[in-house]
Amino acid sequence: MDERFEAIRFENDTLILLDQRLLPTEVAYHHSTTVHDVEFAIRDMVVRGAPAIGSAAAYGVYLAAKEAQSEEQFNELCAFLGNARPTAVNLQWAIDRMKNVYEEHKSSKDLFSELLKEADIIRAEDIATNKQMARIGNQVIPHGATILTHCNTGALATAGWGTALGVIKEAFYDDKKIFVYADETRPRFQGARLTAWELMEAGIPSKLIADSTAATLIRDGKIDLVILGGDRVAANGDVANKLGTFMLSVICKAYGVPFYSVVPVSTIDFELESGDLIPIEERDRSEITHVGDTQVAPTGMEVYNPAFDVTPHQNITGIITEKGIIYPPFKENIQRLKNGEVL
Amino acid sequence: MDERFEAIRFENDTLILLDQRLLPTEVAYHHSTTVHDVEFAIRDMVVRGAPAIGSAAAYGVYLAAKEAQSEEQFNELCAFLGNARPTAVNLQWAIDRMKNVYEEHKSSKDLFSELLKEADIIRAEDIATNKQMARIGNQVIPHGATILTHCNTGALATAGWGTALGVIKEAFYDDKKIFVYADETRPRFQGARLTAWELMEAGIPSKLIADSTAATLIRDGKIDLVILGGDRVAANGDVANKLGTFMLSVICKAYGVPFYSVVPVSTIDFELESGDLIPIEERDRSEITHVGDTQVAPTGMEVYNPAFDVTPHQNITGIITEKGIIYPPFKENIQRLKNGEVL
Repeated sequence: MDERFEAIRFENDTLILLDQRLLPTEVAYHHSTTVHDVEFAIRDMVVRGAPAIGSAAAYGVYLAAKEAQSEEQFNELCAFLGNARPTAVNLQWAIDRMKNVYEEHKSSKDLFSELLKEADIIRAEDIATNKQMARIGNQVIPHGATILTHCNTGALATAGWGTALGVIKEAFYDDKKIFVYADETRPRFQGARLTAWELMEAGIPSKLIADSTAATLIRDGKIDLVILGGDRVAANGDVANKLGTFMLSVICKAYGVPFYSVVPVSTIDFELESGDLIPIEERDRSEITHVGDTQVAPTGMEVYNPAFDVTPHQNITGIITEKGIIYPPFKENIQRLKNGEVL
Repeated sequence: MDERFEAIRFENDTLILLDQRLLPTEVAYHHSTTVHDVEFAIRDMVVRGAPAIGSAAAYGVYLAAKEAQSEEQFNELCAFLGNARPTAVNLQWAIDRMKNVYEEHKSSKDLFSELLKEADIIRAEDIATNKQMARIGNQVIPHGATILTHCNTGALATAGWGTALGVIKEAFYDDKKIFVYADETRPRFQGARLTAWELMEAGIPSKLIADSTAATLIRDGKIDLVILGGDRVAANGDVANKLGTFMLSVICKAYGVPFYSVVPVSTIDFELESGDLIPIEERDRSEITHVGDTQVAPTGMEVYNPAFDVTPHQNITGIITEKGIIYPPFKENIQRLKNGEVL
């Protein structure tokens, strides 16, 4: 049961992205024909969500190779692309993977076709990974569950299908009679604009809430589990994810509600000891002071606007990956995953 | 150091309210000449904040008495006014107080002047009460404190000066070198639109944040205390307040940060055993789906939009009133307050 829309595709050396800045009121596509276009699309959040950023960046590297007059310039363009957003690890992961292909084929006449093939593989792998995570994650969803999710982790956040929202869709198509509460997810409203749109597209019974509403629902036993994505997972299991995730994790821990993060293994930063070391992107004040054309704060008011927060592994029930579910002790089990052992 | 604006005044049988729906981009006044106008102003949140609602309602009762052709009709108009918003106890408290004056003077030629006098007294008492709470509350603010507040509890939420924001202003004018983080307070943005505006008016160093940002600031030791208002306090110390308050209280409790509610004694509902019994107003879905003219959720998406939540007394450090600070055990100390004992 696939989506009726395609958020990322690549045709005639053009990256075509469903423009997520315009949803839910407008379905339009953004075209990137240069690596600068792709960098802008990532930075301005035409495309967002860690796996989707990785997928888009892979095509960006292909475009960079076509544009570059030299290997030096290619490397500069890749570095430029890698700085588009700092928190998600998938961006650099995809760029590095493409650079390996460049290195191997840089003297070959097949360089461009090899790069394009690799970008296509990254995209296809992401979809396959998501479907595998959905099957695995579905195991933790009880029949008749009421599920809370945060931000957008669906087909729009990935190359297709989704991570946490992919699990939710799997449970829905598995006829589990679920109900979903979606946090609106300030400041960018990814829950209101994107998750609500995907939930309606799929026909999943659901309601949209302000982020602060979640706490009372959790306390009052109205939520069976919280399931959401992740932008970077440290080697100890700390998860950086969209602002608001940490707050939810504290409430869940206080009231004994299971809390799951769903991420492909590519989101795990095995080299990073703990979540304290994850760089947290601060975004423009206008995200807080304006919504569309409406000014909601006085002119000149100072703003603090971090895009992500870090949830300590102590607050997490399990991290669902395509290789299985990582349970505590996280540090040991992430090490086992790194070593290729079965979880 | 009073405000440069007057949010509530009454002249020539007209209630003149600073229209809080238009701030911070427009300073305009809304005129009510009938009890129906006043009911609309409360329901549509031209005026909001429990003490301000009480003050506005008192003038509404005066207008009701002028309009009513009979005592029966007067009582009907008062009941109509009392239904404008369900959660704040001050609304009914002010109406009841005005009705007592009506009862006493209903056969007198001085009825209208007595009612107007009482409404003026309610307003003046509220300002005096706020200044007293500010002096008392200032005791809990350390020098150099970084303070987090939620929603709007300033001169705009009261007849003047404010409750929690009144305490913050007192500490600022007491030269305590404070810094304030203001939650934007979804869905109606009272923090962004009103508190930020009052903080800038007063020149208090401050930053505006998304509601979800508070959790990380509290965890990381960047907040010395949280101080906010209350719309109804039950006899056991549970506090109903703007949506988002409960979430903050859980985070504060988890990380050992003091959490204060500032309310006049009129906000305490001595007859209500616990916060579970406080009616929670659900407001229109458009507050979640739209911000100004901008649609942020897909057409037809279902919404759950409670305006308030209830913070259990176990999460509260102290309740600051004009009669002193109520500390645990709350039930016993609220009973002592009711009995007129010194706190």
